[in-house]
Amino acid sequence: MSIALVVLAAGKGTRMESDRPKVLHKIGGAPMLLHALATGASLSPERVVVVAGHGADAVTKAAQDYDPDAEVVIQSEQLGTAHAVAQARDVLEDFDGDVIVLYGDTPFISHDTLEEMARARARHDIVVLGFEAADPARYGRLVMEGDSLARIVEYKDATEEERAITLCNSGVLAADARTLFRLIGEVGNENASGEYYLPDVVALGASQGLSATAVACDEAETQGINSRPELARAEAAFQIRARAQLMADGVTLQAPETVFLSFDTVLGRDTEIEPHVVFGPGVTVESGARIRAFSHLEGCHVSTGGVVGPYARLRPGAELSEDVHVGNFVEVKNAHLSAGVKANHLSYIGDAEIGEGVNIGAGTITCNYDGVFKHRTEIGDGAFIGSNTMLVAPVKIGAGALTGSGSVITEDVPDGALALGRAAQITKEGRGAKLFEMLKARKANQTKGD
Amino acid sequence: MSIALVVLAAGKGTRMESDRPKVLHKIGGAPMLLHALATGASLSPERVVVVAGHGADAVTKAAQDYDPDAEVVIQSEQLGTAHAVAQARDVLEDFDGDVIVLYGDTPFISHDTLEEMARARARHDIVVLGFEAADPARYGRLVMEGDSLARIVEYKDATEEERAITLCNSGVLAADARTLFRLIGEVGNENASGEYYLPDVVALGASQGLSATAVACDEAETQGINSRPELARAEAAFQIRARAQLMADGVTLQAPETVFLSFDTVLGRDTEIEPHVVFGPGVTVESGARIRAFSHLEGCHVSTGGVVGPYARLRPGAELSEDVHVGNFVEVKNAHLSAGVKANHLSYIGDAEIGEGVNIGAGTITCNYDGVFKHRTEIGDGAFIGSNTMLVAPVKIGAGALTGSGSVITEDVPDGALALGRAAQITKEGRGAKLFEMLKARKANQTKGD
Amino acid sequence: MSIALVVLAAGKGTRMESDRPKVLHKIGGAPMLLHALATGASLSPERVVVVAGHGADAVTKAAQDYDPDAEVVIQSEQLGTAHAVAQARDVLEDFDGDVIVLYGDTPFISHDTLEEMARARARHDIVVLGFEAADPARYGRLVMEGDSLARIVEYKDATEEERAITLCNSGVLAADARTLFRLIGEVGNENASGEYYLPDVVALGASQGLSATAVACDEAETQGINSRPELARAEAAFQIRARAQLMADGVTLQAPETVFLSFDTVLGRDTEIEPHVVFGPGVTVESGARIRAFSHLEGCHVSTGGVVGPYARLRPGAELSEDVHVGNFVEVKNAHLSAGVKANHLSYIGDAEIGEGVNIGAGTITCNYDGVFKHRTEIGDGAFIGSNTMLVAPVKIGAGALTGSGSVITEDVPDGALALGRAAQITKEGRGAKLFEMLKARKANQTKGD
Repeated sequence: MSIALVVLAAGKGTRMESDRPKVLHKIGGAPMLLHALATGASLSPERVVVVAGHGADAVTKAAQDYDPDAEVVIQSEQLGTAHAVAQARDVLEDFDGDVIVLYGDTPFISHDTLEEMARARARHDIVVLGFEAADPARYGRLVMEGDSLARIVEYKDATEEERAITLCNSGVLAADARTLFRLIGEVGNENASGEYYLPDVVALGASQGLSATAVACDEAETQGINSRPELARAEAAFQIRARAQLMADGVTLQAPETVFLSFDTVLGRDTEIEPHVVFGPGVTVESGARIRAFSHLEGCHVSTGGVVGPYARLRPGAELSEDVHVGNFVEVKNAHLSAGVKANHLSYIGDAEIGEGVNIGAGTITCNYDGVFKHRTEIGDGAFIGSNTMLVAPVKIGAGALTGSGSVITEDVPDGALALGRAAQITKEGRGAKLFEMLKARKANQTKGD
Repeated sequence: MSIALVVLAAGKGTRMESDRPKVLHKIGGAPMLLHALATGASLSPERVVVVAGHGADAVTKAAQDYDPDAEVVIQSEQLGTAHAVAQARDVLEDFDGDVIVLYGDTPFISHDTLEEMARARARHDIVVLGFEAADPARYGRLVMEGDSLARIVEYKDATEEERAITLCNSGVLAADARTLFRLIGEVGNENASGEYYLPDVVALGASQGLSATAVACDEAETQGINSRPELARAEAAFQIRARAQLMADGVTLQAPETVFLSFDTVLGRDTEIEPHVVFGPGVTVESGARIRAFSHLEGCHVSTGGVVGPYARLRPGAELSEDVHVGNFVEVKNAHLSAGVKANHLSYIGDAEIGEGVNIGAGTITCNYDGVFKHRTEIGDGAFIGSNTMLVAPVKIGAGALTGSGSVITEDVPDGALALGRAAQITKEGRGAKLFEMLKARKANQTKGD
Repeated sequence: MSIALVVLAAGKGTRMESDRPKVLHKIGGAPMLLHALATGASLSPERVVVVAGHGADAVTKAAQDYDPDAEVVIQSEQLGTAHAVAQARDVLEDFDGDVIVLYGDTPFISHDTLEEMARARARHDIVVLGFEAADPARYGRLVMEGDSLARIVEYKDATEEERAITLCNSGVLAADARTLFRLIGEVGNENASGEYYLPDVVALGASQGLSATAVACDEAETQGINSRPELARAEAAFQIRARAQLMADGVTLQAPETVFLSFDTVLGRDTEIEPHVVFGPGVTVESGARIRAFSHLEGCHVSTGGVVGPYARLRPGAELSEDVHVGNFVEVKNAHLSAGVKANHLSYIGDAEIGEGVNIGAGTITCNYDGVFKHRTEIGDGAFIGSNTMLVAPVKIGAGALTGSGSVITEDVPDGALALGRAAQITKEGRGAKLFEMLKARKANQTKGD
């Protein structure tokens, strides 16, 4: 069965108190819209339609960055969920298959749940996703008759008996595209808000002899996000699940509550993560590496035997081969460190290719930016870079070469050479003491003057 | 109605196991005494009297740093709360108005609660602040008769029926000054501890035909602090409230539980705070700025478009204009960074004025201290400071000027000039390899010798 | 009574999903095996026997690093707890006294609990450690008859009545050595798993007229560790207890939940620990010192008046005398900083002896490594090290001497001398502006070319 996703992402999210469109607020380092698209993508849909409205440009960009084939339709006025889905009617006019309606602000629906909805569609015309609510409050209730969903009642219209129902409506829904759009065309807005509600298609379908059913998922999956505190809670829920999964897979997290993961973090078995570590998007760490406290990793790769931190910052394009040590107050960006490289103290390695077993002295800086262009540094195998060496790129240091500490290296250094760039030391006997005396005398005079 | 605050702050706090006076232990970056004074200050009191005892000098200093007009009286011996308030009698001899008794170790009473006490005073001679205790335990009970407070009974003197009361005494109390001091003069110490208890004024007043009532507040407001664990819990409660308030106002806190705020932290709408950030006192961040992980800010200002961190340390006097980037392992102190300045790596910027759009290379240091004096550095608009430039202050770099990486700049540089201070590179072919061989040979010999 | 500990540490810990032997996973910075050995050591045992199996080499090393006198026996196949204890029979053949059986994966048994077991041994032949289980689940039940332990029944063999018992078997057991090994010899393996179970000795003993009893401890003490989530929970429990103990002793922890302690961390009264601090093994901090946010300490000592951090990294061998300040992005390793030393910014101090009152400028590095050897740096009292000084060890700076900022110091500097090693500044008027123009022109051309 062909599937088309329709993802509603037009809302403003007034309660977020934000200028950013609600669905672009992030969870686990990715806009919540992407979580919804990623789950939907696990069904290999033939078409993906995002219904945008507030901040449509930014929403379009985010959706198409993730899936270049995603189509975006605009809902200029927000007149209810049925009205939102209706905006996809034209682009799906020729589509023959099922539509699944998802929500950009409901990022946690699982693949398994969507699969179960697809299976239920074999037996019913319309499938609604429900959840057993711990506190049903004012959610719409799913009134079941056996396996069939008889109707969805809004809380305010519900009888006492119906209010006792705990199976509630998530809003997620699947139906044949033609059927769905036909029913949506019949939905009215004669209600207190004057909005067109998607759940009304169930009652309309029933009146036309169509059958409906509900699939139930865990309430956590249907958690919608409407305010910053809800966003923070969703982030916390994401982190708890992600940490638990890693631990089950054999990762040591000494203090899991202080480690923050992204949606795509990959950590191998027996990697060891100390307290207070942040993983931005795009990080993979191979088995047995150790990430020490206060490290920050984004868009990088750490191989087996690696030791990172404390206080290491790996930025996008940092590629660490086996047994590389990147120590404290060291930043690596867009650079490959070959096996056995050590860069343990106070350094900046950017736009560089570092050979095997190179030792980078404390305070080394690749001067990669001249104010306009970025340039690359290359260092050959087994070279020894003395402390506080400035490598003014573009520059190459040969294999087995050595730079003297405090040198500014502006020209290439051949293999096995020694390069120095520093003034000779001059020592003036007694001058240190005299300078101190002078300064102290000046201070004493000033104080007298006060 | 004129108001005088009497803030009791004489206690030793034995259970704190500390040499510091209890009321000077901090919550949200401010001594708890200041929280009490700040709430009291919201009533615009005519007089503020702090009753100090243990550590009176430090307490006096803290109180008068906050409010230079605060008067301090000394309670040399701690003989009970009535005795403590009595120490304020002389300085308030001519005061005509209400006294409100607050406690330096009870920092969370809200302005609204004090307002409600003030309103209740219109109808009663004495107003006591109570709270509904979840676990009343051994607190004194407030025995109400309708709107009137009949008496306060200590737990040990209470009947079974009275012990069932859950409205408990917070100790906070308001009354006309002359009345209060007269009643206090009549309080006795015929009890097990031999102390003079302030709550006794209620019974004494009743016996003289004065009316009393109680105002109830949330128990969290009356939380007193007597030990380190209670201090930690109070800090936690403060942080939870402060984070929730920021989120409600439109601040993104990805992991609120890892962000620590001060009593006066101001964060604009749509500021984004990553995990593991500490805000010391005196920080304001404008709308839309981003504070990245592991940053530490104190006494500084970040403008719109700013990106701070990861691992940025902004110290008092750091003033960042629009679109300034301060990156990893960069410290800024007492310095103004004009719009568009970038200082992204391993730098120390102290006592400086940096012009618009200046690029500060990695490893740059303003050498502001000569061992005795501190000096200033000025950098003109659009200058480019090469990596690892030492700016030996006092020194001025002109607009659009450029310094070569690794330079020590001791003299002013004119606008548009290039300043260098480095030795030419000398490259000795084969010498690096030879040096390594020599060292390795020496090591081999040593090992043989073992 | 002589005591021999037999510590079972042979298990693989399949559910850990780890190549590391289970008992070597760490809690509070020490392998859990060491926690068990340390508690056992508090009884001053005459003999300590560790039963190793999986990863026996690593387990042996860890055990003997902690206690060189520990004996290790190998259990090649894991055939049950009785079989494991039996492996110790030969080495304890001549031992006359009590055996206490402990578990390498049960690290939290307290000294008091073991003492109580020893006392109970005076009255009974066998003493079993039990615990009142909140949720007894499938634990073995201890069936008591008065003060006597009648038998231990496995859950699956228990009657309804026995399953109602909440006193469960921890596995820890004490008995006379000869008696224990004799009974173990009689234990069979006719059960579903085909294993030899240690608890069977109780029934065997009873059938031979030996008396047994049980001592009950808190369930938290008997918490065993079989998976990463359980390890994380055990670590959390350890941290909560350790923080609470420190607070009770008068340490200020502003945000205890973000501070991580090791098994041997010692913090004096009125030390102040800011949020986000990690203490590795071997740290002592004297009374009144302040450890600021984002600091990381291992194997070091901080004296009274010390201020460490934010972002300070103290590594093994860092010894800070009174009133030393180590500031942000500063690493100290194997170095003594005498009273009053200040090293406040972006420095690396390794293998050094620093005199009293020395000021270490920002960006200072002790160049202690030449690629093969490590060398020492000595700095005399009152010296002033200018910013970005490279101290190429071995090197000595005299008392009261001064180094110019940006100097590379390769030769010793006498007392009171001034040492410089830098090129003179050259300023080329207009050249900065020209360079920028050139670069921008090149960029414009490139862009045209695109």
